[in-house]
Amino acid sequence: MNNASINERVSALRQRMAEVGVDAYFVATDDFHGSEYVGDFFKCREFITGFTGSAGEALILKDAAYLWTDGRYFIQAERELKGSPFVLMRSGTPGVLSVTEMVAGVLQQGQTLAFDGRTVTESRSRLFKKALEKSGVCLRTDVDLVGEVWPDRPAMSCEKLWFLEEEWCGQSRAEKLERVRRCMKEKGAQALVMASLDDIAWTLNIRGNDIACNPVVLSYLILEEEKATLFVQEDAVAGNAADMLNGNAGSRMKELEIESGSDRGCIPARNETEQGEQRNAETARERLGRDGVEIRPYGEIGAALRQLKAGRVWLDPGSVSSFLFSQLPESAERLEEENPTRLMKAVKNETEVEHMRQAHIRDGVAVTKFIYWLKTHVGKEEITEISAAEKLEEFRSQGENYLGPSFDTIAGYAEHGAIVHYSATPETDAALKAEHMLLVDSGGQYLEGTTDITRTIVLGPINRKEKEYFTRVLRGTLKLAAAVFAEGCSGVNFDYLARGPLWEIGEDFRHGTGHGIGYCLNVHEGPNSFHFRAGVRKDCLTVFQPGMITSDEPGYYCEGEFGIRHENLIVCVKDQKTEYGQFLRFEHLTMVPFDLEGIDPALMSERERQLLNDYHAQVYEKIGPYLEEEERAWLREATAGI
Amino acid sequence: MNNASINERVSALRQRMAEVGVDAYFVATDDFHGSEYVGDFFKCREFITGFTGSAGEALILKDAAYLWTDGRYFIQAERELKGSPFVLMRSGTPGVLSVTEMVAGVLQQGQTLAFDGRTVTESRSRLFKKALEKSGVCLRTDVDLVGEVWPDRPAMSCEKLWFLEEEWCGQSRAEKLERVRRCMKEKGAQALVMASLDDIAWTLNIRGNDIACNPVVLSYLILEEEKATLFVQEDAVAGNAADMLNGNAGSRMKELEIESGSDRGCIPARNETEQGEQRNAETARERLGRDGVEIRPYGEIGAALRQLKAGRVWLDPGSVSSFLFSQLPESAERLEEENPTRLMKAVKNETEVEHMRQAHIRDGVAVTKFIYWLKTHVGKEEITEISAAEKLEEFRSQGENYLGPSFDTIAGYAEHGAIVHYSATPETDAALKAEHMLLVDSGGQYLEGTTDITRTIVLGPINRKEKEYFTRVLRGTLKLAAAVFAEGCSGVNFDYLARGPLWEIGEDFRHGTGHGIGYCLNVHEGPNSFHFRAGVRKDCLTVFQPGMITSDEPGYYCEGEFGIRHENLIVCVKDQKTEYGQFLRFEHLTMVPFDLEGIDPALMSERERQLLNDYHAQVYEKIGPYLEEEERAWLREATAGI
Repeated sequence: MNNASINERVSALRQRMAEVGVDAYFVATDDFHGSEYVGDFFKCREFITGFTGSAGEALILKDAAYLWTDGRYFIQAERELKGSPFVLMRSGTPGVLSVTEMVAGVLQQGQTLAFDGRTVTESRSRLFKKALEKSGVCLRTDVDLVGEVWPDRPAMSCEKLWFLEEEWCGQSRAEKLERVRRCMKEKGAQALVMASLDDIAWTLNIRGNDIACNPVVLSYLILEEEKATLFVQEDAVAGNAADMLNGNAGSRMKELEIESGSDRGCIPARNETEQGEQRNAETARERLGRDGVEIRPYGEIGAALRQLKAGRVWLDPGSVSSFLFSQLPESAERLEEENPTRLMKAVKNETEVEHMRQAHIRDGVAVTKFIYWLKTHVGKEEITEISAAEKLEEFRSQGENYLGPSFDTIAGYAEHGAIVHYSATPETDAALKAEHMLLVDSGGQYLEGTTDITRTIVLGPINRKEKEYFTRVLRGTLKLAAAVFAEGCSGVNFDYLARGPLWEIGEDFRHGTGHGIGYCLNVHEGPNSFHFRAGVRKDCLTVFQPGMITSDEPGYYCEGEFGIRHENLIVCVKDQKTEYGQFLRFEHLTMVPFDLEGIDPALMSERERQLLNDYHAQVYEKIGPYLEEEERAWLREATAGI
Repeated sequence: MNNASINERVSALRQRMAEVGVDAYFVATDDFHGSEYVGDFFKCREFITGFTGSAGEALILKDAAYLWTDGRYFIQAERELKGSPFVLMRSGTPGVLSVTEMVAGVLQQGQTLAFDGRTVTESRSRLFKKALEKSGVCLRTDVDLVGEVWPDRPAMSCEKLWFLEEEWCGQSRAEKLERVRRCMKEKGAQALVMASLDDIAWTLNIRGNDIACNPVVLSYLILEEEKATLFVQEDAVAGNAADMLNGNAGSRMKELEIESGSDRGCIPARNETEQGEQRNAETARERLGRDGVEIRPYGEIGAALRQLKAGRVWLDPGSVSSFLFSQLPESAERLEEENPTRLMKAVKNETEVEHMRQAHIRDGVAVTKFIYWLKTHVGKEEITEISAAEKLEEFRSQGENYLGPSFDTIAGYAEHGAIVHYSATPETDAALKAEHMLLVDSGGQYLEGTTDITRTIVLGPINRKEKEYFTRVLRGTLKLAAAVFAEGCSGVNFDYLARGPLWEIGEDFRHGTGHGIGYCLNVHEGPNSFHFRAGVRKDCLTVFQPGMITSDEPGYYCEGEFGIRHENLIVCVKDQKTEYGQFLRFEHLTMVPFDLEGIDPALMSERERQLLNDYHAQVYEKIGPYLEEEERAWLREATAGI
């Protein structure tokens, strides 16, 4: 990113602000659906600031400009904002004003704050209203000023919708609709308005390709007692429905490329293939119609809300935009709660869990082969962060039912590992040598689910400090996954297990310890998570249920030196049932060795070593059979007891 | 308790219910102040059910009667309710209806539920209203039917009020009033109505003797911007103020007896002594008046509320009764939040923390002497649960500034140890032999604070199972106290440390892991606590601050066999400050050895043994100097490294 052009863009925006009488313009990262990752069309915040991270908010004033982001992105944002007019605001750092505190502080009576209300959730919007209450500052939410100064803005994505069959996801569309309607009835809601794309995809067993790596369809869903309406772009459902059928699931549709930061579709549009199956003769409209789901154009959601006849309308202010909220008739009572599907889709059914186990063996084989290849080739041929990531993608794409990456691979060598969400570009792409460590955080989308794994790979001699932190972080990963607990526990109860080994020496990492993950869906999914601050991260209070899958990923980042993260996905399963109730525990889904070359066994307790050895024995047993002879021999060493 | 008389009482109540047209009568445990422990006058629930535990609620219908209590009291309640008309309802057990669910289920349109609204907090009362909403059931809250059938009901306690001087509690009344008023101003409240006795005692630096072991004064406080009014019984403030002065603090006023379940005052009325100090010439009315606190009769609180001129009145529905709520003028806006003093008094100031350390050394000396005495005398002379508790009280009362027990001592021998809140009576009083274990949970009130300690003392050979659980519970106690953590953590983050060693084998204990404690005040105090269910125990979400003192008391109870609990008080203190912020940790206040004869070192990790050895080294260092030669020699062995 050339920050001269950022300066020009900001100047253009300021001119437009002056023309329409706006004193401060707020730019969110969201699309119209509260998505974490967004399509190119929606990347206004990136366009105007040059900051490419997945989380951030910008505020542009006449003489100043600010970008807020969180601890995962401090280092990256510093680098990317250099030379731009934007001051980096480190969210969550003591003493740093929030964006709402800032607007309340700098704007005067009679001045105007504006943003595009379609890209700001209702709950976020209310924070602004509250901050400006009694200040006399005007709020305009009907402008898209960045869009107006973005001449070559990409078109909105409109990829084909496809169906994830019941054989893969374990529950039919009809059953899911019935479950959701039962919840609506319990709450006395006659309508449920859904904007969050993964909730809609889960409910209707549909998938798409409108956000890179997130197989979702740009859409809205209004569910009523007797009726369901999906608002979707016409072209996404034109032609025959593209089923995902068992026999064809393994054939990949097109070659995928890894391009950091690209919005290239990673999920193939299934109807480009010749499938010859009968189900495909049906249009998507017909298939959905069979379950009572009507299709209307994407752009008609506002009108539909204005005409909604329902006494009580359920909608989630955390994912529905303030624009949509404003379209509801005044007569409608609002039930403001999370979508009921949020919890439903987090609790994977037996089919999904069993498929996830299979996907993780296939994924584990790919990552294990990659690690072996890396260790045996580094220092002998030219390998860079980007080419290593491409090699990993090559191994993954050899696996059955692989659809593409679940997020842009993070491959950070040496000091780049300390940039939590590092994304290599041709300018930063480091050559790997037979020294230091390479942090690789990657994942795949399979018909059998979604994976997300981080390994920190030792490429040569590392120093004592690196080894100590490598071992401390790993102790946390292992201890968290080994928790056995009574029903009623939530992620907040276990975060200490992961952070304790760092906290005891005054160290920490500035991100959550774990997040939920979708099934052939978004790599980040609520509501289950691991964190310690229940006050600010409410999701960590979600009570665990068997079937919930969560990542376990403590890390340690030493700026300018190295970064370490060890991440497994773990699924909550039943343990014994006693007079004290049903006990639960976690089971590792991820099956890839942790690098023994990074570990100092003397820094681990006997139990911790046992946990590692038990895990490694499983890895060898499950992954070994799928490897070549020499790879297997290496894996035996790499999983040997310590 | 003779349950024939319970049957008679219930019959008399039912007759009265019929006379006044009540179909269901609810009896709470509370006094008029939402207190956990109550004076004899208020023990309606105990009178009508025969159940003596500190927590429980009764519902009497025409043909059925129910008592709800929690896991701490299941065994005791079963025993005490035998032969009575009451069915035990085990709260918190899956499938057990709550009292509100019960009334909603059994009462029909036109029937009447009644309770004494003075003894039911507003928040509890609202649960009843909500449960009966739309049912057509009437609710009467202006009757005290148990009181009407209680011929020899004790009079309401009216002990003298005394002052805890600033030299003990570290902050003057004027400063505290200013802090509270600052909070009121921030919230825009013109008045704060306080009913919770420990909040009032803390705010005004007053103490009393109206509830056994809880040095509080029956009173209400209305704090306004320019005015403060204490509603208190006339006799409590008659005559000269009885100051607690340094020079006289050590002289105990009267001999105290341990009587299980008795309401005998444990805090001496200080003005019975000859103090000869000048401050004593002042009346309590004059002293309080100097800080702008006016005194009015206890019974005038209702009238005062009716006449209250304040736009916004702050009151806590969790501690203010539904009766008081009903007395507020309609015009007053209600600010319903916890008293600001709840958090203020939980964070002990430096003076209080330092005094608490001293109190715990004195208390530790007493308990250590007691354990030595017990170990050297058991089997040689007649000792029972009650006589052992009396002996412990004897040791405590030799200490300076000791005022009396902070709660009725729990001394449970062998299988009695499994009754979590066991209270020995002459009928159950077991003789101790040189075998099994004695669980002793006790505490003292000192001018330097309040103590609460549990030790499980091995009196002779114990079996392998007892040793295993003794060790598992102790591992939990030690690991919890050893937590080092970032700011922002609360009790919910650490509960797993205490329960983990039990959970891993499907075992548990049915009580919280720890509670806050007052400073020369109530032994149970919010809002800090350790628990794992954040959804139902909100206090465990209270963020720790340096100065908070919490108990750390996991246990294990094997009905009919044995009970184990290991309890220390731990204070939150600062650890290092790094780029990740201020780290915190706990420091043990309690200084008494854990019984090495109960421990199987092979079941502990190296780190756990180290934690125990470090703690024991501290105990020897701090307690040893105050012991007799032979006691010290024994302590050296009892704290030897393992």
